[in-house]
Amino acid sequence: MEVISCLSEMQKSSLQWEREGKKIGFVPTMGSLHLGHLSLVDLVRDQSDLVIVSIFVNPTQFAEGEDLEKYPRDLERDLLLCKEQKVDYVFTPRTEDIYKVNASTYIAEKSVSEKLCGQSRPLHFKGVTTICAKLFNLCRPTFVALGQKDAQQVSVLKRMIEDLHFPIEVIVGRIVRETDGLAMSSRNVYLNDTQREDARLIFQALIKVKKLVVEEKTINVDRLKEELMKVLQQGNSVRVDYAEVVNRNTMRIEEGNISKESLLVVAVWVDSVRLIDNMDLSNE
Amino acid sequence: MEVISCLSEMQKSSLQWEREGKKIGFVPTMGSLHLGHLSLVDLVRDQSDLVIVSIFVNPTQFAEGEDLEKYPRDLERDLLLCKEQKVDYVFTPRTEDIYKVNASTYIAEKSVSEKLCGQSRPLHFKGVTTICAKLFNLCRPTFVALGQKDAQQVSVLKRMIEDLHFPIEVIVGRIVRETDGLAMSSRNVYLNDTQREDARLIFQALIKVKKLVVEEKTINVDRLKEELMKVLQQGNSVRVDYAEVVNRNTMRIEEGNISKESLLVVAVWVDSVRLIDNMDLSNE
Repeated sequence: MEVISCLSEMQKSSLQWEREGKKIGFVPTMGSLHLGHLSLVDLVRDQSDLVIVSIFVNPTQFAEGEDLEKYPRDLERDLLLCKEQKVDYVFTPRTEDIYKVNASTYIAEKSVSEKLCGQSRPLHFKGVTTICAKLFNLCRPTFVALGQKDAQQVSVLKRMIEDLHFPIEVIVGRIVRETDGLAMSSRNVYLNDTQREDARLIFQALIKVKKLVVEEKTINVDRLKEELMKVLQQGNSVRVDYAEVVNRNTMRIEEGNISKESLLVVAVWVDSVRLIDNMDLSNE
Repeated sequence: MEVISCLSEMQKSSLQWEREGKKIGFVPTMGSLHLGHLSLVDLVRDQSDLVIVSIFVNPTQFAEGEDLEKYPRDLERDLLLCKEQKVDYVFTPRTEDIYKVNASTYIAEKSVSEKLCGQSRPLHFKGVTTICAKLFNLCRPTFVALGQKDAQQVSVLKRMIEDLHFPIEVIVGRIVRETDGLAMSSRNVYLNDTQREDARLIFQALIKVKKLVVEEKTINVDRLKEELMKVLQQGNSVRVDYAEVVNRNTMRIEEGNISKESLLVVAVWVDSVRLIDNMDLSNE
């Protein structure tokens, strides 16, 4: 495994692999790797000749007052995990190289990114699309693996890739969960025991709704959201940011009855920790 | 010479050329080709294994009320000219393929594009950066040739390419002029004889300022602009949109004395026809 920090070295290498006809699998991360990330590595490795994992805590997707400074970082551990996972290249660019002093270009997606996390975190997806376009141009992936936990991010990036005609195929990895059901996230380390207890309610609520759909054939969106809220409200430290049924591709909020493309998405604050999760409501 | 309209065919081809280690030279145009465009083809051909010219009248860089509808189009003539110029591939995408119905992603540059044409045409450069990123991903150029006549466009695209880390080298072609000095432009066909007479004043004004700098060692920006305006104001149909001395890389407006990176840029309306031109004021 090789670690590359220099942008021009990364790009020179990926352009060379391209010329050699190699299929490049790419997993963009902010480090603090967990089994969710590692499952993405497995997912692209099957189809790729080599796998690049990028580790870069992207400042532009954090707003003022969010957790950029305290976001967990442990490069040494991350590199060990990548090595064990048979990653070929880890790309660890420096912030000042990715965002030059006079940089003035950004990419915006204005439909899929509008609601949900885009509403709670207004500049977030602009940061995500911009950094991903940069990383795509530097790493030249054939495949990019993204985790379903960040469902809206997946849809936004798919839309950007399609709109800008990047020749990249998106592979989506299913949500990997802790044994208690909590979706794996680098932010889970922020939780103390009481908060962690409450955080479990998210998955319990999602599962309850899924059961209602599958077993009771409940299809009314309001009814389902009501049941979801009932579970979430059991947590003293839980404050719901949003809980919606959306179209899984467009992220448009659904009303009335669920559809074949319905996705239940939820963002909650557990005290000062913001967690997101989602559940496919289609009956497949 | 081959004409390709299909996006996936274009991209498949360019990806294949990439694998073959071919250097791709690219000249993006809106058609209605003139000697300026053709000189760009010559410029990239020297360094490239094959040359792609794209012909696409990009709607998103025209504002409501601008000349999108009447913009001159003559594909047959353009293809003949490309063939004579030994272009290898002409890419003629359809608008509905470039901008899908649900497309929602754009690229914005927020510094170089701010003033001058960016001020007179607020959405113009957003259209330019977005279409160019799309075309870059479809044609995968090693070199892109751009004309110096559109000086701000050159700087904006250079900045975008650098900021987003596109592995593309920009080659700038000098301004090609008619025998009377008027910078070649597809919009020159809009001019009747009287207007054409007035349009010549642009080059005469630029030349006068250049002479003042070179021969009289005049370096004061206000003094130079004053002389420029004197010439332009001789035209009854001329209305100056802007006339500025700017830094040729950042497009920042210069005051006081000219610098080694000074560029004199001018946009005028000749009745309803908007023309731009520029002149390097550095003494090199």
